[in-house]
Amino acid sequence: MQHLRENTVFVGNKPVMNYVLAVVTQFNNGAETVAIKARGKAISRAVDTAEISLNRFLDGVTKKDIVISTEMIDTDSGKTNVSSIEIVLENHK
Amino acid sequence: MQHLRENTVFVGNKPVMNYVLAVVTQFNNGAETVAIKARGKAISRAVDTAEISLNRFLDGVTKKDIVISTEMIDTDSGKTNVSSIEIVLENHK
Repeated sequence: MQHLRENTVFVGNKPVMNYVLAVVTQFNNGAETVAIKARGKAISRAVDTAEISLNRFLDGVTKKDIVISTEMIDTDSGKTNVSSIEIVLENHK
Repeated sequence: MQHLRENTVFVGNKPVMNYVLAVVTQFNNGAETVAIKARGKAISRAVDTAEISLNRFLDGVTKKDIVISTEMIDTDSGKTNVSSIEIVLENHK
C-alpha cells in the first residue's frame, strides 16, 4: 500500500458526497494527509466535504490546517480575484 | 475609544461589501480582534469578507485563527446539520 505524502481533492460543483468519497478513498489507500481545495462558491462545499468526512466516515483523522487566500485568475473579461480555501486533514493511525 | 475583546460579524446573504464595511468599522473603533462567522452557503462570502478586508482595507491586521465545525439547527422539517466557519482577525497595532 502506498503512503503518499499529500493527496489533494479539488472541490467543484458536483454533489458533496462525490468529494467525501474521494477523501475517504485516499485515506483508505494509505494517505497520511489529504488536502481539500476549492475556490469561490465551492468553498462552502469544501467545508461540507471536510465536516462530513470527519464526522461520518473517518476515525483517527483530524483537521491539521485551514488556510484561506486570494488567487488571481484569468477570465474572458480580464484578470479577477477569487478567494480560495485549503483544508488539510491528517490521519493519526 | 473602546477596546472590546472580541467583536463578531455574522455573514449572510447581503452583498459582501456590507460585511467588509462592518469588519473595517469594528477595527477602526478599536477592536483587537474581529470574528467573522457564517453558516452553509454563506461560508464562501465569509472567506471573501476576510480576504477583501485584509487585502484592501486593513493594515497591521492578520488572520489569527480559522475554525470550521458542524452545527445542528432546527428547521420546519426537523433537525439538520450545517457547516460553519469562524475566521478571527487580529490587529497588531
